[in-house]
Amino acid sequence: MYSRSDKNQPIVQKYGGTSVGTVERIRAIAARVARQRAAGWRKIAVVVSAMAGETNRFVELVGMVNPDAAAKHYDLAVAAGEQVSTALMAAALEREGVPAEAFLAYQIGLRAEGLHAKARIRSIETARLEACWAAGGVPVVAGFQGVGEQNELMTLGRGGSDISAVALAVALKASFCEINTDVEGVFTADPRFVPGARLVEVLDYDSALEMAALGSKVLHSRCVELGAKYAMPIVVRNSFDVEEARRTQIMSFTESQALEAPVVTGVSLDRNVCKFTLTGLRRGSSVLSTIFERVAEAGANVDIIIQNEISESDSMRLGFTVGNADDKLAVQALETLQAEPPFDGMEFSRQEDLAKVSVVGLGMKSYAGVASRAFAALAGAGIEILMTSTSEIKISCVVPAERADEAARAWHNTFFAN
Amino acid sequence: MYSRSDKNQPIVQKYGGTSVGTVERIRAIAARVARQRAAGWRKIAVVVSAMAGETNRFVELVGMVNPDAAAKHYDLAVAAGEQVSTALMAAALEREGVPAEAFLAYQIGLRAEGLHAKARIRSIETARLEACWAAGGVPVVAGFQGVGEQNELMTLGRGGSDISAVALAVALKASFCEINTDVEGVFTADPRFVPGARLVEVLDYDSALEMAALGSKVLHSRCVELGAKYAMPIVVRNSFDVEEARRTQIMSFTESQALEAPVVTGVSLDRNVCKFTLTGLRRGSSVLSTIFERVAEAGANVDIIIQNEISESDSMRLGFTVGNADDKLAVQALETLQAEPPFDGMEFSRQEDLAKVSVVGLGMKSYAGVASRAFAALAGAGIEILMTSTSEIKISCVVPAERADEAARAWHNTFFAN
Repeated sequence: MYSRSDKNQPIVQKYGGTSVGTVERIRAIAARVARQRAAGWRKIAVVVSAMAGETNRFVELVGMVNPDAAAKHYDLAVAAGEQVSTALMAAALEREGVPAEAFLAYQIGLRAEGLHAKARIRSIETARLEACWAAGGVPVVAGFQGVGEQNELMTLGRGGSDISAVALAVALKASFCEINTDVEGVFTADPRFVPGARLVEVLDYDSALEMAALGSKVLHSRCVELGAKYAMPIVVRNSFDVEEARRTQIMSFTESQALEAPVVTGVSLDRNVCKFTLTGLRRGSSVLSTIFERVAEAGANVDIIIQNEISESDSMRLGFTVGNADDKLAVQALETLQAEPPFDGMEFSRQEDLAKVSVVGLGMKSYAGVASRAFAALAGAGIEILMTSTSEIKISCVVPAERADEAARAWHNTFFAN
Repeated sequence: MYSRSDKNQPIVQKYGGTSVGTVERIRAIAARVARQRAAGWRKIAVVVSAMAGETNRFVELVGMVNPDAAAKHYDLAVAAGEQVSTALMAAALEREGVPAEAFLAYQIGLRAEGLHAKARIRSIETARLEACWAAGGVPVVAGFQGVGEQNELMTLGRGGSDISAVALAVALKASFCEINTDVEGVFTADPRFVPGARLVEVLDYDSALEMAALGSKVLHSRCVELGAKYAMPIVVRNSFDVEEARRTQIMSFTESQALEAPVVTGVSLDRNVCKFTLTGLRRGSSVLSTIFERVAEAGANVDIIIQNEISESDSMRLGFTVGNADDKLAVQALETLQAEPPFDGMEFSRQEDLAKVSVVGLGMKSYAGVASRAFAALAGAGIEILMTSTSEIKISCVVPAERADEAARAWHNTFFAN
């Protein structure tokens, strides 16, 4: 991206928790920014996460003081982590001779709304950041935080600093947003479990979104969604890789790029799956909406939904999955529902220790037969498929967790063997 | 103070770093506030410091990243400590069934001015704190911090949270401001070094100010000055002492109280003294003012100044002391001066490892002979006096640091033996 972008245009760089986890790393990042400034980049904005471990430390402290503490108190304590990182990065930049100014959410009108601990960014005022550039400085912005209506601190939830960075890039009309992390980019599969996994150099937003939503830990789907909404190119790279060319670019594909896109971009794995099966559901127009309304109200995020009308009966069978962490919330919601007509005949069972393996690719739109090859590969390996969900650009199968790595390897061999 | 105050009037309670140093202590303090609320106190505001050790941890991190980091970066990192304490205290209060709302400086318009790391409070907006009380809650305010003109975080320097608490008490028109700490109050001398030292139950602002300025670590002099300026009673007590009567009250004395005040209130010790002697100074109207202007500009706080005109010569001799920490700053200022007329004939020497022992008391105003008894006591112990400074209500002698404890004991024996 650097070679193709105008050095007078803004760029945003985000550095995550492990990237700023030690004094040495913070200094190394400051040195990189100084080199880029020396090469003529005039408008670099840096977004930082808390030092690795700090967030957990603060969460534990609040939990020890009051296990039932309100989310707003957690937010206030946790946001201190990014505040410290911001100060450290600004100090490190000045050591490299780069004037730097630290900004917290309230100083740049980074307003958030919604729930504490999972707030959404509403607006950002860029005047002070522009002024910092005009004065020859580098603004360093605290990630993960925003302020609510009462100016109270709110945090943005998982992947929050990535979201801060992309939102800032959009507000600043940046050429691109760089997410610096501890991996080199998005891979065709997790290299720790799938030998032969390769770095994906260019990725469309849709495929990146599926990869993110499907458990590839590199980027959070909210971050990719935001990039897609505003067509903001996102570059994922390793914070400490001097080779700028080794990275994944996520961007809008032109029609010709889309046509030439590989059939399959990658294989993704989510080990954190719990499956519910509901039976004895009476038919009715609002049955499905009521169930998922209640489950959402309880705070559980539903992933796959499989619904099948059984024509000869008036009862319905329904399956859905949630993350293991949301397991109990979903059970509560369903138990409450069982006490209310027309759900009093409903029964549900829960199956844990499952994983979801997915194959994603923009090219699947125009190639038939991907699904059959995928099923054949799992059948050949003798892996039971408990649930299947498909979209235009992905196929997901829920399998027993202990067979998940095998399933991913089988698919990677099928689609990426050359 | 509790027995004499109206429960409908505001009170401010400040808890320092060791008082909020562990989860258990934070919970114990929350329980105390809950008991007071149950006893009918409707308007309690709590001010907290950072957990003991946190401030140093953040200072070290910044220092490791950049030993020459700007003070504003230190301020930003360090202020995170109070932010975390505020969240923890609010969470702990809610566990006790007390609704609590945490406030950072920017949320209550706690504006500061002056230098980073030693800012002064300019104003506080009380509307949100009053609203919190009106809604039945306890506001928990982050001590030590304010925001400057650009809304940037500034810290108030040593004793900063005490200053926050007294300023808040003044703004809220509180009945009194309680400084909860790890000692029971102000003592006639430091009980660790002077056997027989006793708790002072009531103290006038002037004596408290001298005690604070002279090295009694209980209260910072800026805090006492602020209390004196607005006649805000300050109560110093141990955070965990259930016996509310065991404490020191600092307040305005009526004339009769002043007449009855003990001759001597206490003996105080400051081990952190460095003495400068300047010779070869030409006489001139602006010589003295220039010297102390430059030393102040360099950031060194001057304590004692001794100046003596030598009538038969046209050169002057000058002595002054600074804290050991300001030692190098003063040297720099003086070396720069040596290059400029009329200071080109000036020479200076520095003496370290000194201590200042002081005896303070409102009653000294009306009793003669305190100075002679003080000198006699040190002479009797064979302790060399390197410098003496007196005011209406105190006598200070600079002595070798290794004799400081002996000097304090000698004076305590002289003035407090009963």
